[in-house]
Amino acid sequence: MMNRIVILLLCVLFSSTSHASFPEKFCKADLNGPDSPSGYLCLPSETVTAADFKYTFNGKAGILVPPNTLVFPATVAQYPILNGLGISGAIVEIPEGGILPVHDHDATEIVLVIEGQIDVGILTPRKAFRNKLTPGDVFLFPKGLLHYLINSGRGKAVAFAAFSSPNPSFRFLYEELFTNDVPSITISQISFLDVAQVRKLKARFNGTG
Amino acid sequence: MMNRIVILLLCVLFSSTSHASFPEKFCKADLNGPDSPSGYLCLPSETVTAADFKYTFNGKAGILVPPNTLVFPATVAQYPILNGLGISGAIVEIPEGGILPVHDHDATEIVLVIEGQIDVGILTPRKAFRNKLTPGDVFLFPKGLLHYLINSGRGKAVAFAAFSSPNPSFRFLYEELFTNDVPSITISQISFLDVAQVRKLKARFNGTG
Amino acid sequence: MMNRIVILLLCVLFSSTSHASFPEKFCKADLNGPDSPSGYLCLPSETVTAADFKYTFNGKAGILVPPNTLVFPATVAQYPILNGLGISGAIVEIPEGGILPVHDHDATEIVLVIEGQIDVGILTPRKAFRNKLTPGDVFLFPKGLLHYLINSGRGKAVAFAAFSSPNPSFRFLYEELFTNDVPSITISQISFLDVAQVRKLKARFNGTG
Amino acid sequence: MMNRIVILLLCVLFSSTSHASFPEKFCKADLNGPDSPSGYLCLPSETVTAADFKYTFNGKAGILVPPNTLVFPATVAQYPILNGLGISGAIVEIPEGGILPVHDHDATEIVLVIEGQIDVGILTPRKAFRNKLTPGDVFLFPKGLLHYLINSGRGKAVAFAAFSSPNPSFRFLYEELFTNDVPSITISQISFLDVAQVRKLKARFNGTG
Amino acid sequence: MMNRIVILLLCVLFSSTSHASFPEKFCKADLNGPDSPSGYLCLPSETVTAADFKYTFNGKAGILVPPNTLVFPATVAQYPILNGLGISGAIVEIPEGGILPVHDHDATEIVLVIEGQIDVGILTPRKAFRNKLTPGDVFLFPKGLLHYLINSGRGKAVAFAAFSSPNPSFRFLYEELFTNDVPSITISQISFLDVAQVRKLKARFNGTG
Amino acid sequence: MMNRIVILLLCVLFSSTSHASFPEKFCKADLNGPDSPSGYLCLPSETVTAADFKYTFNGKAGILVPPNTLVFPATVAQYPILNGLGISGAIVEIPEGGILPVHDHDATEIVLVIEGQIDVGILTPRKAFRNKLTPGDVFLFPKGLLHYLINSGRGKAVAFAAFSSPNPSFRFLYEELFTNDVPSITISQISFLDVAQVRKLKARFNGTG
Repeated sequence: MMNRIVILLLCVLFSSTSHASFPEKFCKADLNGPDSPSGYLCLPSETVTAADFKYTFNGKAGILVPPNTLVFPATVAQYPILNGLGISGAIVEIPEGGILPVHDHDATEIVLVIEGQIDVGILTPRKAFRNKLTPGDVFLFPKGLLHYLINSGRGKAVAFAAFSSPNPSFRFLYEELFTNDVPSITISQISFLDVAQVRKLKARFNGTG
Repeated sequence: MMNRIVILLLCVLFSSTSHASFPEKFCKADLNGPDSPSGYLCLPSETVTAADFKYTFNGKAGILVPPNTLVFPATVAQYPILNGLGISGAIVEIPEGGILPVHDHDATEIVLVIEGQIDVGILTPRKAFRNKLTPGDVFLFPKGLLHYLINSGRGKAVAFAAFSSPNPSFRFLYEELFTNDVPSITISQISFLDVAQVRKLKARFNGTG
Repeated sequence: MMNRIVILLLCVLFSSTSHASFPEKFCKADLNGPDSPSGYLCLPSETVTAADFKYTFNGKAGILVPPNTLVFPATVAQYPILNGLGISGAIVEIPEGGILPVHDHDATEIVLVIEGQIDVGILTPRKAFRNKLTPGDVFLFPKGLLHYLINSGRGKAVAFAAFSSPNPSFRFLYEELFTNDVPSITISQISFLDVAQVRKLKARFNGTG
Repeated sequence: MMNRIVILLLCVLFSSTSHASFPEKFCKADLNGPDSPSGYLCLPSETVTAADFKYTFNGKAGILVPPNTLVFPATVAQYPILNGLGISGAIVEIPEGGILPVHDHDATEIVLVIEGQIDVGILTPRKAFRNKLTPGDVFLFPKGLLHYLINSGRGKAVAFAAFSSPNPSFRFLYEELFTNDVPSITISQISFLDVAQVRKLKARFNGTG
Repeated sequence: MMNRIVILLLCVLFSSTSHASFPEKFCKADLNGPDSPSGYLCLPSETVTAADFKYTFNGKAGILVPPNTLVFPATVAQYPILNGLGISGAIVEIPEGGILPVHDHDATEIVLVIEGQIDVGILTPRKAFRNKLTPGDVFLFPKGLLHYLINSGRGKAVAFAAFSSPNPSFRFLYEELFTNDVPSITISQISFLDVAQVRKLKARFNGTG
Repeated sequence: MMNRIVILLLCVLFSSTSHASFPEKFCKADLNGPDSPSGYLCLPSETVTAADFKYTFNGKAGILVPPNTLVFPATVAQYPILNGLGISGAIVEIPEGGILPVHDHDATEIVLVIEGQIDVGILTPRKAFRNKLTPGDVFLFPKGLLHYLINSGRGKAVAFAAFSSPNPSFRFLYEELFTNDVPSITISQISFLDVAQVRKLKARFNGTG
């Protein structure tokens, strides 16, 4: 009978605390330790402060993506409280006439245009989905699909991108094809590009072979 | 021996198409059909156009959250191409002196301040994490934790929020506590609020009981 | 400049509702419709009532598991609000001297003994983990591992089991081996059991072959 | 031809063991090490014994949740074999006239009433789902939704709750609102509560500000 | 007291069946119905037969991937019992001197060489990982990374690839870049390829613009 | 106004690197360190070479599964780059007249017959799904379901199996039932097997009790 469990439970030592809370549900990445398939190990939650939840793009060095765009990432490497939480962000700043070349990432992206006019495109095997964006517009780049942004207006264009992963791992096509040591003849074979074209771009992007 | 499989494969009918592509990897929600635990059923991918990937906040009606904030959601209900893709967004517009009251959602949020100054806070059982944000700052609200935004500057404040779910389901505390038909005495018991306080807010927010 | 987005947003039609809520986050299974890899399709959330969240084991017909145990499942088939929510339950009632024979399910189980004394065991390829439980004890059966329960005390034993899936799909070993139409000689070969043993149990459990 | 692989495979060194088993599929938490987004690191599986799979509520100290309920958790902190396995449990003991105040957790809960009569409610932004439970009844609290339990009968009420996570992280609303150092005026603003009400409860629950 | 639940349970109607089984755990895709984010809806499990679990590559038409490779997919479209089960396969047949051009898919691939010699490479932004495979070798292509296969031996090469998804969605780079209607000047800008090169390949692969 | 963010961004220090790549997306298991619920911790990605992505079955020692089958696993323990990537493989070599006895694993399996003829079966509680396979055929064994393979042809049979997990954890039924120290009388009770049968197989497979 349940009587027995009830009686046994009556013997408990009553807890003296009136504070009933349980573990925090965030995990600030220990970037000095190893990564795991689910993300970095957590620093002790007691050491997390309000400052950890904030990140500012102001005053940060951007990453110059050829030919001329600046990307300011706020992913787990810069903003370790994102670890394990399924989201990250970046500011993209494209000068007048500039482009963010074709790339993908293992996360879906939603991008909001803040300033300027941006032509965007998704390149799928079946068709391309292209559009023109102005401030107040968002566009969706599904996980893993190649896409690009071109500043098609006057002045610089600024956008904020959010990703469905704390560590989206941008993969620019020019890097994948031309910065490595794979022989130009091989790159030509697997991409249908002319060898001369491959050599020209390997030279530009510091590839060898 | 493998010889047999090799010979059998030689008998294949060669496909005449040189177009090797496979199914698209996005799923525009059929909002007229049923939902499922993984999201809405997909409309045929052939019917998806470039316009589906774009959403504009311009000209849209906001949702007025008491006392005075406008929220412009871009979640799967408004932007069905998000379906199944793990992300969504919203613009939040808080008038001078305004607030976005305490709420949570079943998705992590990263919020970028675009205009104005915003005081934010996360309320966890153990402690509160508070900060002040200005344009160019982002802040993280982990999945499921109560949080708020207060316009602490001059003029209106505008922010863009991205969520780690296409359907984040905002849950405002005032609605959960005061718009229902649970007797005020019960709400008082379970929340430690005085009955008079509960009655006052039930009256304000159209609750009964 | 952001001025443009700000101006455009000022043109919005103000929503007249002060009710800011968003979609419910539960999905009552439409058991008459098709299943999907993530669970059943959802019935409209407006039709869900408080009664849907409750299930009672009282007055229900149990499933008689040979030789003599009654299992009262509360899985998605009986309790459709569980759909997509990662949990389910069951009451197990084992008569004095009775057993719940060896089985597994594609969900982890935590079992609480409510009445009586139960000997439990997990059979892994490396070793068996056995213990004796009395009221107030719980035991964990990890996902996919074979396990059993034996009433080792006086009177009947009653336990409540919770599973980490709304649809745990119990797989009793005697059914897998002996209720099918696989020839006894084959079952013997693949299980190392003597053919006579297989035939005897096929006869008992309505197998053929 | 496959002949080559076949020939190469014939050269293998035959294993002398007849024990074909592979790694165990449980992961006892190393609570002294760091946490990760998927749970704690595993202690060596060879050190796991049958005792690790058992946990008893008998003789344990409960956590006193104001005003008067005892919660006896069996989550990963107390029961480390749960790590990574998607389930946990707790006994809740509510004295006559007592309540378990409004809270949520990032896991779905199924609760079985063992003794007494309990009134339960789920508070969603749209409506409340309330019911009355007696022994043999279960109720479902979907992930993330605020809910409460009130002993509405004679004598104490006892229930067993199972959660769809090994680490469900209970979040009591009174703690979130009143035990922190956020100024009362701010809590008042974001919750619509009167400042006097906030100050009264901050005083009761050791909040400051 | 638990007595009450015990007494109530005694009133159950005993089930007359001795067959304790529960729902099957596979979901044959209904390819005529809509897709969902978790896969296709399931056909009734009673209609599934042993034949559904088998698929043969023999006698099937391959897909000709330029310039000269045949791919025989066994993904959910051809083999609907894979639906929701996290795996699929394909036979790849590369003629002497042939290649499978650079592509990726949203699934990890493990490939076994059955016949012939294959040079493989993974192109990541940081470096390329290249190797030579002969029968009995496997190679891993992580999810989302560009890779290629070249027959570097005599005679044809045959390999079996397995993917960590029932619907891996192959994305060949030549299709993404050159079969669409994006103007050649745009493709040139976003890829750094010369316009003449783009025009040449658009002509070859039926692109327009 | 957004002017402020724009101005602040102009102050950034321009990055001098033109190499825009981000972290690699593979995680070679550190098999000397602890496991976690999502897999092993990662070795530094800089130490990963092309050789890590290749594994050869040639020259490896197989695991002898009674009565007479050799299994050559390529799971995370042998092939650590699989860690976290949702796939693994194995070669199975069954001599003429041999069998791979009934087992399951916590991963779906797709098996390709390379040489010989194999009779396969899935044993579910409801029915068995049996078929005959020859080179070029694949068969699906859904996650968690008992299954077997019998060489039903002349000469040895060779198959390649791929699994939807890097660590599928094979569970052979004869090991689960007969190699442990559970008393024969208990195994008999929970399996319906005669005690004499249990004792005979315990003796054969080094069980005790």
